Amino acid sequence: MTDATRMVLASRPQGKPVPDNFRKEEVTLPALTDGTFLVRVIWLSLDPYMRGRMDDAKSYAKPVAIGDTMEGGAVGEVMNSRNADYPKGAIVAGAFGWTTHAVSDGTSVRIVDPAVAPISTAQGVLGMPGITAWVGLNDIGRAQDGETIVVSAATGAVGAIVGQLARARNMRVIGVAGGADKCAHAVQDLGYHACLDHHAHDAKSLSQAIADAAPDGVDVYFESVGGKTLEAVLPHMNTHGRIALCGMIAWYSGHGIGDAQPLPTVWRHILTRRLLVEGFISFDHFHKFDAFLAEVGPMVRDGRITYREDIAEGLENAPDAFLRMLSGGNFGKQLVRVGADPA
Amino acid sequence: MTDATRMVLASRPQGKPVPDNFRKEEVTLPALTDGTFLVRVIWLSLDPYMRGRMDDAKSYAKPVAIGDTMEGGAVGEVMNSRNADYPKGAIVAGAFGWTTHAVSDGTSVRIVDPAVAPISTAQGVLGMPGITAWVGLNDIGRAQDGETIVVSAATGAVGAIVGQLARARNMRVIGVAGGADKCAHAVQDLGYHACLDHHAHDAKSLSQAIADAAPDGVDVYFESVGGKTLEAVLPHMNTHGRIALCGMIAWYSGHGIGDAQPLPTVWRHILTRRLLVEGFISFDHFHKFDAFLAEVGPMVRDGRITYREDIAEGLENAPDAFLRMLSGGNFGKQLVRVGADPA
Repeated sequence: MTDATRMVLASRPQGKPVPDNFRKEEVTLPALTDGTFLVRVIWLSLDPYMRGRMDDAKSYAKPVAIGDTMEGGAVGEVMNSRNADYPKGAIVAGAFGWTTHAVSDGTSVRIVDPAVAPISTAQGVLGMPGITAWVGLNDIGRAQDGETIVVSAATGAVGAIVGQLARARNMRVIGVAGGADKCAHAVQDLGYHACLDHHAHDAKSLSQAIADAAPDGVDVYFESVGGKTLEAVLPHMNTHGRIALCGMIAWYSGHGIGDAQPLPTVWRHILTRRLLVEGFISFDHFHKFDAFLAEVGPMVRDGRITYREDIAEGLENAPDAFLRMLSGGNFGKQLVRVGADPA
Repeated sequence: MTDATRMVLASRPQGKPVPDNFRKEEVTLPALTDGTFLVRVIWLSLDPYMRGRMDDAKSYAKPVAIGDTMEGGAVGEVMNSRNADYPKGAIVAGAFGWTTHAVSDGTSVRIVDPAVAPISTAQGVLGMPGITAWVGLNDIGRAQDGETIVVSAATGAVGAIVGQLARARNMRVIGVAGGADKCAHAVQDLGYHACLDHHAHDAKSLSQAIADAAPDGVDVYFESVGGKTLEAVLPHMNTHGRIALCGMIAWYSGHGIGDAQPLPTVWRHILTRRLLVEGFISFDHFHKFDAFLAEVGPMVRDGRITYREDIAEGLENAPDAFLRMLSGGNFGKQLVRVGADPA
């Protein structure tokens, strides 16, 4: 019998989430049965999609029930096992949730090879954010070498990978990020040709800055924010441009930023420029995971793709780190160190 | 030397166009030079896209200049020719404009075979509206046999063809049209499984009616109106649904109908359902015209596809017919009989 600490959803947020929406619980896990194994969580990933799970609105996934453990991807070590596919000592990635320990039957769990890169990358550049970036750029954004791309949340877990993959394809790569430090990182470390600080702009001046940075217009917009960034990019989309829509963090906790833009204006742009706007969710594309790892794994190993992590210490700090991330306070892929590295 | 009567753009509309935005002019055409030919216009086509040409907003095509002949597709007879490809007596279709006669050098002009169908169809079911329907259903809407489609402007020049092509593909076909007579025509003559009269509904009850008519949800929305029809359809789109966006007639003369729907709501639907929204314009696809004619020509000839025409008599009535069409007053493909049938 193993004791676990968990963070559960205490209440649904009204607009912006607050710390009281979460509650810490101590539970005792059931004994292992045939086919199951016990995981000690090492890294918990915090991702914007979790905000959606806190609401009970209809979406692509069921909401987290009040009192249930918050959902989340994590990397851990198998401590005990009655499943030969996941032996004791294996490093595994799966949807273990905001918890220190979990019992799993292997559903949607994959083995992580620590020889490729540090195991935390299984929740970042070589995990869900990575395949989101790779699919969004190639399959949804239909990026072509030499085109111009604008990447919102340019230094975020997904955006940072989009930018580097796009640069490797000889695209002109323009980022939008919140803060001068993030923009400097985007240009100096991630290879962006230009990065615009949306804190320093309203929608109109941001739009002008994009026009200046993209003299040939914008062919692909990697959209994960909505709000004023969308408003600023849209007028500069080239004919037959593509918008890969994987998030809208500016609007996750209600409207307010950039939602003054009337729908007819957006619809007119899509029509007259013959744009393609496609929503996508990484899990629809997990069957491509091996192809993704085969291409991007070596790029991470040899340093062609770098990554930055923003680490909160201890599960009890997950709610604060999550709230900070929702308002753009993280700098790099947001992780929580839940347990010690494997021996 | 030939005299021609033309309708020119007298002034740009402020919101809804009015008759005073047009002016009749008599001109004398220049003598033919090598490579040119004289066309006597028989049928002028009136189409919603012309509304866009009256504004000077940036769009996919240049606006008509004040004082210039209104643009428009037409079918006519070659009266005199110094171009061997377009001999005297040939029936031709081209962008001759709102005029009784035109001199052409053959740019974007095609020969019409009167043996296939009445020559007026070269501006309808076998012309631009036809290829718009065919491309929008197949290439943009990515329709699959057995899926459910909603067609806005269901009995319009484009919608009527979309509906019949979709029915021929064993899709479940739901129309939205303005008026009980149009809806009866849609079901009785065009093969729609159901047709909803948007005059009889607000956005909310229209949405419920769509839900009732589409028990398996909506896979493809053929969008040419925007406004409340868009608002009503969107919540019923299935995961991985497609919106083929070829027009937004409800919003052509300013906002007002259905534009209360906030952009974030639309964006959220696109994201969570992983929709694909693609704008398209027929002229990007004219290279497929032969393939289109080869497939749809025989369907028209043997009656599998029927069509209905709404005919205004005389060029001077073109403005009124156009204004009527913009508010949905036409019933079938809107044409103007400018000259007599060929002998």
